Formats: sequence, structure tokens, C-alpha cells
Amino acid sequence: MARGKKIYEGKAKILFEGPEPGTIVQYFKDDATAFNAEKQSVIDGKGVLNNRLSEYFMVGLNQIGVPTHFLKRLNMREQLVRNCEIIPLEVIVRNYAAGSMSKRLGIEEGTQLPRPIVEYCYKDDSLGDPLVSEEHIAAFGWASQQDMDDILGLALRVNDYMSGVMYGVGIKLIDFKIEIGRVYEGDFQRLVVADEISPDSCRLWDIESGQKLDKDVFRRDLGSLTDAYAEVARRLGVMPKGTGPKPTLVN
Amino acid sequence: MARGKKIYEGKAKILFEGPEPGTIVQYFKDDATAFNAEKQSVIDGKGVLNNRLSEYFMVGLNQIGVPTHFLKRLNMREQLVRNCEIIPLEVIVRNYAAGSMSKRLGIEEGTQLPRPIVEYCYKDDSLGDPLVSEEHIAAFGWASQQDMDDILGLALRVNDYMSGVMYGVGIKLIDFKIEIGRVYEGDFQRLVVADEISPDSCRLWDIESGQKLDKDVFRRDLGSLTDAYAEVARRLGVMPKGTGPKPTLVN
Ligand SMILES: Nc1ncnc2c1ncn2[C@@H]1O[C@H](COP(=O)(O)OP(=O)(O)O)[C@@H](O)[C@H]1O
Ligand SMILES: Nc1ncnc2c1ncn2[C@@H]1O[C@H](COP(=O)(O)OP(=O)(O)O)[C@@H](O)[C@H]1O
Ligand SMILES: [Mg+2]
Ligand SMILES: [Mg+2]
Repeated sequence: MARGKKIYEGKAKILFEGPEPGTIVQYFKDDATAFNAEKQSVIDGKGVLNNRLSEYFMVGLNQIGVPTHFLKRLNMREQLVRNCEIIPLEVIVRNYAAGSMSKRLGIEEGTQLPRPIVEYCYKDDSLGDPLVSEEHIAAFGWASQQDMDDILGLALRVNDYMSGVMYGVGIKLIDFKIEIGRVYEGDFQRLVVADEISPDSCRLWDIESGQKLDKDVFRRDLGSLTDAYAEVARRLGVMPKGTGPKPTLVN
Repeated sequence: MARGKKIYEGKAKILFEGPEPGTIVQYFKDDATAFNAEKQSVIDGKGVLNNRLSEYFMVGLNQIGVPTHFLKRLNMREQLVRNCEIIPLEVIVRNYAAGSMSKRLGIEEGTQLPRPIVEYCYKDDSLGDPLVSEEHIAAFGWASQQDMDDILGLALRVNDYMSGVMYGVGIKLIDFKIEIGRVYEGDFQRLVVADEISPDSCRLWDIESGQKLDKDVFRRDLGSLTDAYAEVARRLGVMPKGTGPKPTLVN
């Protein structure tokens, strides 16, 4: 078993020491939380789906030269990733208004934005992940100006690519959130896409019907969350052969 | 009928005057040519498929904010586009070595390149579309330095997006060619993606089997070209409902 000591338990994942220095194991739980953990549930199979889907997106990003933390999937619920120093920001890219932006700025959900808008929230659950500007980020030293330029470039490339992946299977990428980590190579640092990319961290609407295929199904009680995530996985041909629409829960 | 006087007949398409100033109608023929028109054939249904597929990709690019010439599809074989001043370059983006690059540089087909490589060929059939460098382009005034920066930016965004679209349906984007046009808005010029994006202008390999789903099927006599293009269209959900694998040839 590749996994070592437990390092951290978050809302959706557990981190363990990896088999080699500089690596960690991400274990994907079935726990779902929303509204800063005010709403909680356990959703059978969510972790398995997110582990697969995050692998799928990160592998694709690596292939086009967008660096990510992903190294390899270990089993149904675990993947090996590079240990990063996480920049304490949620980097959100929005193509259409939804969620908190709709609420804060009074824009109807689904309205196309004039161009993709990148937002940053300071990652702190006790503060409710407040929106911050580049001014705050620079002043508090969370990232340098160079980092911010690189983060913006990465975020927009992820957006172009993920928009394409989703368009190919009839899904509109409304918005998504990524986290960025620093990895050190000798004296140099490089920024990589870390954490996860999954229907937990994206808003995905079916192009034809508008049906939601993301965590809003849980947030808003719109039906079965695993059915929605499994539909995304099915369209992308991601679930292993022989697995039906419901993932087998082996671990 | 929207179409006016014939303006130009090329190897794969015919241009007609459009209904409004600044517009033209692109008619997609079934003619296939390769090796600078040394090899020629008529392939039933190719024009219908390319008209649809080019519409599909251009609409997607417009949605993410990559400007294109596309205005609307008129019928099975025709689409309305903005009339541009075409920059006389074939802009080629390569992710994996293939075709002329493999031959010229002795790199085995399918070898992943260290990063996407953008090439320019001077668009002149009588010269066989020779490879040129930025030095040539600047010296002969085909494009300014600013144009070249913009062209590179557009080409790389198209590459990220198209790589994503294809990845989502199990296809590897080996390389593709676009043409760039200038449109004038008052005193300003803007660059847009023009011509077509279709399996005629991309190399597309099935990720699992390596099967070619592009014009190399014709160039190298690997089977039915329409079957290959229809497979791409089918995976992307592009062909109109009720149409079988072979497109209905109405025009
Ligand atoms: N490659 C990585 N290296 C180190 N930490 C990471 C990496 N990828 C993600 N993380 C961190 O691991 C945690 C993932 O668990 P999660 O359940 O999402 O936590 P949280 O509830 O804090 O969002 C997050 O705090 C995230 O910032
Ligand atoms: N939006 C546009 N405005 C003007 N010309 C265009 C536009 N899009 C493509 N073209 C030109 O129309 C022609 C398309 O026909 P095609 O059969 O591909 O020609 P060719 O044999 O010259 O490649 C090309 O010469 C291309 O440069
Ligand atoms: Mg998290
Ligand atoms: Mg042409």
C-alpha cells in the first residue's frame, strides 16, 4: 500500500504521505458539503467518480502542457500527486453568471459574461472564503505579481481546454474553481494546477436541456448527485469498462 | 437564395458573393485533393460533413471568445461568413510529429513534440506552399510583428480548445491548419479565424486504436473517407437527428 501517515482531512478528501518524498496521496471521500459545510451528506460513489474524473482532466491538461500536480491514479479512490505549497486562493473562472456572482452582482443565472472573468477567493473556511482582489493578494503576500500573471494564464488555458472537452460532449462549462500549488525544482518554483477538477468544482449544464450535472444538484436538492456525475463520466468515456452507470464501490 | 456571383473556386470550396456587403457564401464541394492537387477525387458527402463540422468548431470558438469568420449555416453545403482579407499563410499547429514535419525533420510520426510548434507556410499552390519563418513574413510584409503576435495567440487558443473537444470524444489532435483573415471595423482591423476547420485540415487519431479519422485516409488510401469524417461527426453529436452515418445528399 502506497499510503503513509495521514496529513490532513478536509471536507472532500484526505491527504496521506506518499511513498516518495515530494509526493502525497489524495483519498477521495464520499462526503458532500455545501454553503461552507452548513449542508452535509454522504453520497455513495461520489469519491470514486471524482477520483476518475480529476485524473481524466489532469492527464489531458498535462498532455497540452498545462502543468498539474497529478502523477498517477492508485486505485478507485486514491491518486498520487506532487506535494505542493498551496496558494491560499480559490481561483474561479466564470463564463456565464451563476451562484455567488449572480447573487452578489444581480445577474441572472446563465447570462453569458462579456468575457471569461477570473475571481479569487481567500481560502479560509472560518471566513467563508471571501472574494479578494489582486490588491489584497499583493498586499498580504499570498502571491507575487509574477505569480498572479502566471495564475491568470494557467486559469485561462484550463478554461479554453475544459470548455472544449465539455463542448465535445454537449455540456456547457458555466464556471469552475481550481487551486494552484508551488513546486520547487532546485532554486526555481513552478506553479501547477493542484487539488481536483471534478463536478464538485465545476458548474456543468447540458447544452440541450440545461440540466445541471454538477454539485448544484446537491446544493439545491435536484435529484441524484451520483447519477449526474456518472452521466458526465459516461459521456467522456471515463468509467472503466464493465462498470454500469453506478460505479462499483470497491476500496 | 442567399448566394450571388461566383467569386472564386478553390480545391475544396467555392466562394459566392453574400446577401449583404462584407459577407460571402462558402460552398463546400465533395472534391478531395492532396499533395498539392496531384491526387484528386470526388468523395460523396465530404462537403456536407465539412460544412457541418466547420460550423460546429467555429461556433464553439466564437463562444469562448476566439473570433472567427463564421456567421451562419445556410443549408447542407453552404455557410455565410464574413468576407476577409486572407493573410497568405497556412498557420499550422503541431502537437505530435506527422506528415511534412516528420519527413523534413526525420521525426517518427506520432512522436509527441516538446511543446506545440506553430509553423507558417506561404499559401501559393504553384510553389507548393513552402515553409517560411517570421523573418520572411516580416520582410515581405505578409503580416506585421503585431499581427504575428496575435496570430500566435489565436493559434494556441484554437489548439487548447480543439485539443479539449477532441479529447472529450477519445480523439488525439495531432496537428491542424488554419487561415487567418483581417476584417476592418472603421479604422481598426481585427484578425479572425477564417477558411474552415474540419477533418480536411486536422490530423485526428483515435486515442485507443490510433485509427486515422482525417484526410490522411484519402492521402494514404486507408479506406472510406466519409466513414472517417462521419465517425468524427457522430462522436461530437453533430449530424442532424434522423440522419444515418451517411449524410443525406440534398442540395
Ligand atoms: N498537490 C497538493 N499538495 C498539497 N496540498 C494539496 C494538493 N492538492 C490539494 N491540496 C490541499 O488538500 C486539501 C484537499 O482536501 P479537501 O477535502 O478539498 O479540503 P478543504 O476542505 O480544505 O477544501 C485542500 O486543503 C487542498 O488545498
Ligand atoms: N472569410 C473568408 N473571406 C475571404 N476568403 C476566404 C475566407 N475564408 C476562406 N477564404 C478563402 O477561400 C478559399 C477557400 O477555398 P479552398 O477550396 O479551400 O481554396 P484553396 O484551393 O485556395 O485552398 C481559400 O482561398 C481561402 O483562403
Ligand atoms: Mg477542497
Ligand atoms: Mg483551402
